[in-house]
Order: sequence, then structure tokens, then C-alpha cells
Amino acid sequence: MSVDAAYLRKFRCFENLSEEQREAVAKLAKAECFYPKYTFYEENAPGEHLYMLVTGEAEILYSIGEDSPARVDRMGAGEMIGCSTLVPPYKHTSTARSLTKIDVLEIDAKALRELMSEDCSLGFSIQQYIMKFLMDQIINFRLEA
Amino acid sequence: MSVDAAYLRKFRCFENLSEEQREAVAKLAKAECFYPKYTFYEENAPGEHLYMLVTGEAEILYSIGEDSPARVDRMGAGEMIGCSTLVPPYKHTSTARSLTKIDVLEIDAKALRELMSEDCSLGFSIQQYIMKFLMDQIINFRLEA
Repeated sequence: MSVDAAYLRKFRCFENLSEEQREAVAKLAKAECFYPKYTFYEENAPGEHLYMLVTGEAEILYSIGEDSPARVDRMGAGEMIGCSTLVPPYKHTSTARSLTKIDVLEIDAKALRELMSEDCSLGFSIQQYIMKFLMDQIINFRLEA
Repeated sequence: MSVDAAYLRKFRCFENLSEEQREAVAKLAKAECFYPKYTFYEENAPGEHLYMLVTGEAEILYSIGEDSPARVDRMGAGEMIGCSTLVPPYKHTSTARSLTKIDVLEIDAKALRELMSEDCSLGFSIQQYIMKFLMDQIINFRLEA
């Protein structure tokens, strides 16, 4: 299902964009609904889509050595999963799976990367969000260590 | 001591900038040398400077609860310390101290933030480096967990 630009305003990632920039992003997004245990992407796969979580919860899994993937994080409404699709070499660094029934915006990562380089003020704004998001994750890791 | 733009080329953070952009960054940087146990910045302090390490090693310390700060990372030549000065709210999220005699480029963080918003292709390129750097740190945390 296609997405209205105004709908993107509710995500912190897009709140600093202009209406016109949100319209450009909305064209790359579609609303999807998945059941529990749906795999959004797998570790090391090329980064084709990133997801904004609308409702529900997802788990982030990571493989260490030969062990089967272990949960390293949980993500909920308003959060982004798959941001490594926007960071060279544009491959997923983890596996993501739904824990509940889940509504998401699925965004075409390659098209978003192109849009971010063409309109670098849009790119700058989205990257600010991602840097903050990654830094918060690092602080959480330190607190849990 | 002032810094030559060509000198910035050796840092991965600046390698994708144009010569003109490197010149603009060089104007905000000065070369400094510090002895072991020099504190570059303290956790929660406003982000005034970030540092590119030229030679030597620094440790990153982080306070958890009431305990005294514990080492969470070590940084060496070619690496950046203080990148939280480029991420809202522009405060240091850790303490950094030299472990050895250390040569650094000290960069005025506020002026760099202004330059990054004025020239968003420059900003975009530096942010790309920081996102990659933060993501690599997250992968290391997962591997160590």
C-alpha cells in the first residue's frame, strides 16, 4: 500500500525534512503487515530494504562464531531496522525477525541512498538521526557490559 | 600549529572530500602533542573539540552508576575521538585520556558542525565515516558480549 507523505512526520528519522522531501521519501515506501517470525532480512545479505516500525516488535539477531544467531536487541514502534543498508558496504550486519504481528513501512534502500546523495540536505538530516540512534545503542551496550 | 590541507588526506574521515573542502576543514584544525594521562574531554562536557589521532594511543572511559570510570575502548593512529560532538545534543558521551605520548589534530567541533550544515556534501561525507565507525563499534560490542 502506498504511503502519504504526512504519515512520515510521525517518525523522528523524517521529522526534520521539508514536506517536499517527505514526499520524495514516501514514493520509495510502502506499508506492509507481517505475522510473527517473519524474517525481514538476514545477516550479510545485500541491503535492499529498511523498515520503520509502526506497531509491534522485532528482534535483532547476530551470529557469533559457529553458534546459532542470538538476540542482541529488540525494536519497537517508531524505530528503524536495517540502517546498515545506508552505510557502506550496504550489507545487513544482523538478522531481523518479527516477534509480534507487525506493521511497518518498507523503504527501498537503494533508491533512498540515491535520493540521499542527490539531495544532500535530506541525506544529512537522515544521517543525523542514524548517528544518534547508533550512539544511543553504544551507550546501552556500555551500560549492559 | 596550523595544518596543511593535504595532511588531512591520510585520515579516512576526510579522504572523500575535495581539496577545497579539506582546506576548509584544515582551517579549523591545529596539530597538538600531549603527554600520557592527558584528559582530552570528560563525559557529559559540552563538545568543544574532536581529535584525529596521528600517533600514540588513547583510552575511552565510561562511568556506570557510582563506580569510577572504566575503560571501554582504546583508539590508535588514524582514528577519531570525540565524534559525539557532531551528534545532537553535542555533548561528550565518555571521557578520553592519552595512554602514551600522543600527536593529534584538534578540531573546533562547533565550527565543524557549522561547516557541515553549510556544505552538506562535506557534512554528508563526514557523517558517512562516523556511521561506519559507530556501526563497527556496535559489531565489536556484539562480538565481545
